[in-house]
Amino acid sequence: MSDYPKSPLMGQMMSQPLLISSIIKHADRYYGANEIVSRRVEGDIHRYTYRDCHRRSRQMANALAGLGVKMGDRVATLAWNGYRHLELYYAISGSGAVMHTINPRLHPEQIAYIVNHAEDQYLFFDMTFLPLVEAFAAHCKTVKGFVMMCDRDRMPAESKIPNLMCYEELIEKSSDVYEWPLFDENSASSLCYTSGTTGNPKGALYSHRSTVLHSYASAMPDALNVSSRDAVLPVVPMFHVNAWGLPYSVPLTGAKMVFPGPNLDGKSIYELFEQEKVTFSAGVPTVWLGLLTHVGQNNLQFSTFKRTVIGGSACPPAMMKTFREKYNVEVVHAWGMTEMSPLGTACTLQAHHLNLPAEKQQAILEKQGHAIYGVDMKIVGDDGKELPWDGKTYGNLLVKGPWIISSYFKSEGGDVLQDGWFPTGDVATIDADGYMQITDRSKDVIKSGGEWIGTIDLENIAMAHPAVQQAACIGVFHPKWDERPLLVVVRKPGVEVSKEELIKFYDGKIAKWWTPDDVTFVDALPIGATGKVLKNRIREQFKEYKLPTA
Amino acid sequence: MSDYPKSPLMGQMMSQPLLISSIIKHADRYYGANEIVSRRVEGDIHRYTYRDCHRRSRQMANALAGLGVKMGDRVATLAWNGYRHLELYYAISGSGAVMHTINPRLHPEQIAYIVNHAEDQYLFFDMTFLPLVEAFAAHCKTVKGFVMMCDRDRMPAESKIPNLMCYEELIEKSSDVYEWPLFDENSASSLCYTSGTTGNPKGALYSHRSTVLHSYASAMPDALNVSSRDAVLPVVPMFHVNAWGLPYSVPLTGAKMVFPGPNLDGKSIYELFEQEKVTFSAGVPTVWLGLLTHVGQNNLQFSTFKRTVIGGSACPPAMMKTFREKYNVEVVHAWGMTEMSPLGTACTLQAHHLNLPAEKQQAILEKQGHAIYGVDMKIVGDDGKELPWDGKTYGNLLVKGPWIISSYFKSEGGDVLQDGWFPTGDVATIDADGYMQITDRSKDVIKSGGEWIGTIDLENIAMAHPAVQQAACIGVFHPKWDERPLLVVVRKPGVEVSKEELIKFYDGKIAKWWTPDDVTFVDALPIGATGKVLKNRIREQFKEYKLPTA
Ligand SMILES: Nc1ncnc2c1ncn2[C@@H]1O[C@H](COP(=O)(O)O)[C@@H](O)[C@H]1O
Repeated sequence: MSDYPKSPLMGQMMSQPLLISSIIKHADRYYGANEIVSRRVEGDIHRYTYRDCHRRSRQMANALAGLGVKMGDRVATLAWNGYRHLELYYAISGSGAVMHTINPRLHPEQIAYIVNHAEDQYLFFDMTFLPLVEAFAAHCKTVKGFVMMCDRDRMPAESKIPNLMCYEELIEKSSDVYEWPLFDENSASSLCYTSGTTGNPKGALYSHRSTVLHSYASAMPDALNVSSRDAVLPVVPMFHVNAWGLPYSVPLTGAKMVFPGPNLDGKSIYELFEQEKVTFSAGVPTVWLGLLTHVGQNNLQFSTFKRTVIGGSACPPAMMKTFREKYNVEVVHAWGMTEMSPLGTACTLQAHHLNLPAEKQQAILEKQGHAIYGVDMKIVGDDGKELPWDGKTYGNLLVKGPWIISSYFKSEGGDVLQDGWFPTGDVATIDADGYMQITDRSKDVIKSGGEWIGTIDLENIAMAHPAVQQAACIGVFHPKWDERPLLVVVRKPGVEVSKEELIKFYDGKIAKWWTPDDVTFVDALPIGATGKVLKNRIREQFKEYKLPTA
Repeated sequence: MSDYPKSPLMGQMMSQPLLISSIIKHADRYYGANEIVSRRVEGDIHRYTYRDCHRRSRQMANALAGLGVKMGDRVATLAWNGYRHLELYYAISGSGAVMHTINPRLHPEQIAYIVNHAEDQYLFFDMTFLPLVEAFAAHCKTVKGFVMMCDRDRMPAESKIPNLMCYEELIEKSSDVYEWPLFDENSASSLCYTSGTTGNPKGALYSHRSTVLHSYASAMPDALNVSSRDAVLPVVPMFHVNAWGLPYSVPLTGAKMVFPGPNLDGKSIYELFEQEKVTFSAGVPTVWLGLLTHVGQNNLQFSTFKRTVIGGSACPPAMMKTFREKYNVEVVHAWGMTEMSPLGTACTLQAHHLNLPAEKQQAILEKQGHAIYGVDMKIVGDDGKELPWDGKTYGNLLVKGPWIISSYFKSEGGDVLQDGWFPTGDVATIDADGYMQITDRSKDVIKSGGEWIGTIDLENIAMAHPAVQQAACIGVFHPKWDERPLLVVVRKPGVEVSKEELIKFYDGKIAKWWTPDDVTFVDALPIGATGKVLKNRIREQFKEYKLPTA
């Protein structure tokens, strides 16, 4: 931040860098007795407190130093949401090294590519990933050792993984006397590769400053709104943009943390919600679909669950409605991306909305929301000119803020900013009150006769139909219009519905020419490593599709 | 922040300084239609929006540039809580100059001293302060001009104030096209002198960075907890540590702002609460005393008021009880000081307290609370050694954090830090959960036979007696014990109570030897410029007091 002109009169405040270690220290000192509960890979429930977590993080920081990990070194993890993963978040970043979370749902070759690109020095992994690690370990050129996150008695008798160590052994033999070092707050803290669907994966390299600022902003009343009386279960994985920052913002606020481990099916999540009195959660729509199905089929209710953030892809309004009306759970629609740490917007009402009729309020809450303080947004046309905030005009969404990347790790992809703004690749409208709504990913938008058709709207309408479990809309070739929409539908188990009925369902809900030309039924949609529907795979699958209108 | 070592690997995030101007920009873009309502010095109610406020702040920034105000220049204000004062907060700091708020309740000579010490270039003042400014203007050596914050038709026909200008005229003739400059976030933003009871007033010089970080931290769910659905009335004056940061944290969250102007009596405040549907407020106990008296005498209730922060001096538990039980208003006890921007702690419960019986919860909520994230605290003995967090051991309270001063303006008072920590001058306990409780100001503590007696406890007990309106406890000379407590009491209007009854009231509530040796009745307690009881004046008054026990 030193490249800005200084005033002739500087403030006289304490100079204190914003460091990730200060979060776990704060949690220990002021919320030390609050719990962290984890369903472990081993299957059992593990409980301890922030005080314990801080102690073990310090032990792990000593262990890392013993392994020769230095400031700026990358240390990788392949792990579910659990307490050991949290300890690594603080031990690695807190000691000045870089926490590199890897998505275990990627192909072994992709993982090896990422590990080599990041030049990871060590790799920590959950027991479940032993076979995966065995598959790619030999291809990792920079990794000096692998650490299995388990007790000593769970270690394999032998393994072809070179220099395989045991997490608990490292902890045991390390002292808990450790002073978190002070260093420049712009130092790299963590690294996360985008699930980029084209080209090589690219890394977002966060700093301590960006992480701390993002934690402050995301914990605010109009964003996550987490207090020390909450119990938070992050369903979104810690390998997916740091679980949207929850491993930082939850300890910072002192809330109880509940980690689900590997089982994210509706039944497992529901049980944990009830047992641990979870009040708040966060995840992508596909996971909530599983939870709602389980709860619906078994006629269950939530006893403590009050609020959830849904993001990662557009939350179907029908899902919000179910949560609100059937289960009395408030849904906060949020939007962000790996390049944004990730939070950019959250959708909550303002004072002057409170007198609006319920449907008007719902319509606002379906949007992705207003920028959280620190982020600024604008929409521009293809010519780069700024477009009006009228809630109708859509354009390319650009963002700016201290927790948004300025470039990718190792300058992969070159200069990415446009005049200081990061182009999100999303197409959106912004209304006069500053509420943003994503109409599409720019690469998913359907170009019909020179006009754009947003696919999110089309999908949301389909998903409001009682027979539809999931829907995706893609553009397929049309000789006259270039592209026309094709709706790809997964029906609810045992429910029938015809093409014609679904097409008719659009009547009056949308401009006539936006209506899909055809509907096709499939058993499942391809889901990517972060739980999002993979549109490019669907497009690939239906590349040769012949529309009845063609 | 550049004096800390850099990692070999720096993060790749946007470099964006934390500047105060970003707050009003954010309020405009994302909460532009939300209201700012002011009861003006002129007597009427003025309303406009954040969008209007931003526009007029830009006009004022242009006006300041026209007056030759440059980065780092100090510009003073003598003003109540109102929209013009808010515009100055942004226009002055946002353009890189330093907002110097002066407490108008000080003596004219003290004001002149402060203006000269700060080397203020211009001084803005509310109409009500015309006579005050006339009294000291001639003594201001650096001030190039005075601006009266009013419409043109309110300007005095003539005045002995040199170069007297009109606020609205400055606005009118200035363009609203203004780009907030970008500069180093550690640049000075604002200046506030402590109401120091001994020695010369000393200035705390805040930076943009400290102000923005303080705003984030203080808006969190476990501190002020302000959302864009709230309506906030800051009773605490904008000249008293920036109204505890509300002029920043409220626009940042987009809440409606309600400014009370000069009338802080119970009736005026109550009317505004009801008319403007205020949900949240903040002030010192003496002001709330006035409000509660008015509401109680007239059998009124609050229709929208839900939560208030009370700080500045210890909030008597009896007051909290009345707010909670009689009016269903949640009280958040908070502690801070001018040197801390000011917020250091806030008192809210944690998850593991929720099962405690009500009295146990109350006992926790009577404390000053846990540090807000960013602040750290410790208690030390007179030898500087750290004392245990057991809720019993008391010691000198030291604090650390990015919004705490490192030294006073112009190094007044020399090196103030002890090993990097700021000594608050307060004596406190901290319990195992990290909750701090002030037992006294170190200079108010009563030293009886080598032991300490905390006066806050003694006062709180007295104020729980139904006949007591206000109470202060001081140490007076005792030949055997050095000092013994004398209780100075203001009775409720028309209510009688005897010395003996009050002394008996302490039975069983406190260690026998802490019980005041005597009680004396007065008509009123001396109140300082920031609404706090002036203990040193009371001590002065009772210097020669002879205790019956002496
Ligand atoms: N909640 C509180 N309880 C007790 N004393 C307080 C509280 N808040 C502020 N103070 C006192 O006010 C001082 C700061 O005064 P000032 O700088 O004028 O705001 C602190 O050092 C405390 O002595």
